[in-house]
Amino acid sequence: MTSRRAADPRHMARALQLARRGLYTTHPNPRVGCVLVREGASGEEDEVVGEGFHERAGEPHAEVHAIKAAGSRAHGATAYVTLEPCSHHGRTGPCAAALIDAGVARVVVAMVDPNPQVAGRGIALLEQAGIAVEVGLLQSEAEALNPGFISRMRRGRPFVRLKMAMSLDGRTAMLSGESQWITGPEARTQVQRLRARSNAILSGVESVIMDDSRLTLRADQLKLDNAEQICRHQPLRVIVDTRLRLPLAAACLSEPGRTLVVTVPEHDPARRRRLEAAGAEILSLPAGEDGRVSLPLLLRWLAENAEINELLLETGATLAGAMLDAELVDEMQLFVAPTLLGGEARPLFALPGLARMADQRRLAIHDMRAVGRDWRIIATPEPTSAASPSKVP
Amino acid sequence: MTSRRAADPRHMARALQLARRGLYTTHPNPRVGCVLVREGASGEEDEVVGEGFHERAGEPHAEVHAIKAAGSRAHGATAYVTLEPCSHHGRTGPCAAALIDAGVARVVVAMVDPNPQVAGRGIALLEQAGIAVEVGLLQSEAEALNPGFISRMRRGRPFVRLKMAMSLDGRTAMLSGESQWITGPEARTQVQRLRARSNAILSGVESVIMDDSRLTLRADQLKLDNAEQICRHQPLRVIVDTRLRLPLAAACLSEPGRTLVVTVPEHDPARRRRLEAAGAEILSLPAGEDGRVSLPLLLRWLAENAEINELLLETGATLAGAMLDAELVDEMQLFVAPTLLGGEARPLFALPGLARMADQRRLAIHDMRAVGRDWRIIATPEPTSAASPSKVP
Repeated sequence: MTSRRAADPRHMARALQLARRGLYTTHPNPRVGCVLVREGASGEEDEVVGEGFHERAGEPHAEVHAIKAAGSRAHGATAYVTLEPCSHHGRTGPCAAALIDAGVARVVVAMVDPNPQVAGRGIALLEQAGIAVEVGLLQSEAEALNPGFISRMRRGRPFVRLKMAMSLDGRTAMLSGESQWITGPEARTQVQRLRARSNAILSGVESVIMDDSRLTLRADQLKLDNAEQICRHQPLRVIVDTRLRLPLAAACLSEPGRTLVVTVPEHDPARRRRLEAAGAEILSLPAGEDGRVSLPLLLRWLAENAEINELLLETGATLAGAMLDAELVDEMQLFVAPTLLGGEARPLFALPGLARMADQRRLAIHDMRAVGRDWRIIATPEPTSAASPSKVP
Repeated sequence: MTSRRAADPRHMARALQLARRGLYTTHPNPRVGCVLVREGASGEEDEVVGEGFHERAGEPHAEVHAIKAAGSRAHGATAYVTLEPCSHHGRTGPCAAALIDAGVARVVVAMVDPNPQVAGRGIALLEQAGIAVEVGLLQSEAEALNPGFISRMRRGRPFVRLKMAMSLDGRTAMLSGESQWITGPEARTQVQRLRARSNAILSGVESVIMDDSRLTLRADQLKLDNAEQICRHQPLRVIVDTRLRLPLAAACLSEPGRTLVVTVPEHDPARRRRLEAAGAEILSLPAGEDGRVSLPLLLRWLAENAEINELLLETGATLAGAMLDAELVDEMQLFVAPTLLGGEARPLFALPGLARMADQRRLAIHDMRAVGRDWRIIATPEPTSAASPSKVP
């Protein structure tokens, strides 16, 4: 009934481009783009009659924007959507119904919605209405746009991106902890954008104390047109702090946005009240075998209770090592400064289990490129056969 | 009298390409290429009448090969030479005289010979014979071809290239010393080629003991057509060994080629004789302030007494750190494997003086590219204002 057209990839690529405009604003929703196209008569160009992308949760979905732009010209058009149109009544009506009502003749979908509330039902609705549906065009590109949403829906935990700034000899700071200005302003802008696309930043209390980290978005460093607007929604700051050591005067507690301090049930109630008074929210989670906060439980909690899609891990060697060790890191972004700090400076990862070369953690490097005077490496850890239980400071 | 022609850079680029053919074989001589070209009549192509490069010390220079190839057609031609033609009677006659005798009309030279025995005299000879000479075309490319020869002539020491293989977190081996197979076969081939273009390999006794390093060229890993021929001349192995700790059974002592063990005058004469009997040559050099072999003196000795142009530094954190500290490293080639070895593994550099960020050693990164599954980074250390005296294990 339906066959692929030569122009399909081009229109879907445009829809992906539109979806990307929501990179910093749609969370906890996925980034989605939609293009409505009327097929040109033989020998003539296709005509784009409507475009849209999802900008913000609570506002219309991509399809609705595109249908509105097209008006009556949506009738008989093909819709290119980067994610399966929704079938459920959420904060807006179901998009599948909107497409049917608009009279589109054909729908090309890059990927099925991993949301169990949709998961093929949107496509089924369209097909039941006699609309031709094609699924899977530029699917991996569409998946790359929403790693966090997909991870939360499929695995029940956020997509975890580990960011580290290091010297060429793999050091994050001098032994004293001094670490200012390892990387340059261009790298810091990239890190700000990683924060902006994440719903939460995870750090260990040790590195928050060491650097008195603010863990905030700063409009002047983002270098985006809508920077001010993006900064109105600060990512949730999540601090793993088993023994409630966070100072009451910690800089992050007086920043805009929320700070979640994660501890175990055995904490000191008086200390808890004082931290709450200082601006922290306290979350108690069962401890792991080693008495520390269980990292897998924390990630599950963040997905289920805070709708965190992408989590940015910005921390020191101990928590970074524990997350790697527990196989909870999905992507690493290393910013490498062209400098040497020497063998006594602080290491990138504490990986205490590694004694033999056979234990080394292998990575796949996907990208290495200059960012100002620094270099950015994007890598993914390869799975090990036996992951050890998670540990945390 | 002479003016630059549009085709000049192209012909000089060809001469540089020819010179590169001697990359692994000319030492201690420089790599030099020469092209003889007859200018085409208006609207016609230039004609290349002769080409040559210097292949091996004791054999004819590039100009002589090119003149021989051109025969009588050298008369009236332009010679493009990557290095000033020599003026002295060395193992072969002076090339400036050969060009005059061949009747060339014009000579384009990429760079003046840094050899004080030449240093402009070749050019003067040509000009005295009425030949138009132009100097400086593609000069930096020509200099890049002979960093070692230039360093030896101008600074009285070899060009020092530091090679290290490391994990992405800046580790060279596990704490136990175990380090097999950090990098893959493509990176090892690159390292073999770095050895092949060097006249000597410098290592500290500690890492030679740890790895039982052979420090040799292996034809099967070089992956070059003339690999067997190149391997007939093994680089000089230079081992810094203040206290003569090199084991008599060290693998490198039974390899083809020479092993020079560098110590201080206070060594044990009996130990010296036993090492000599095992195949080592012993060099005593005055100690530095710390009682260890003085690295600047060693480099000077290697330039003056062994005609070492390019020295490859392949060693552990201590000697690498001491060389960097003494500002004796001209280039770094880091081979980075996509793996993590953890914070307890061996560091890249011991730089004991570095305690504050202000002490960090800044580098300029020139190149970062994939080599098989690994990555190669080429960087140069930027000079510090105050270099500390050299130290060695």
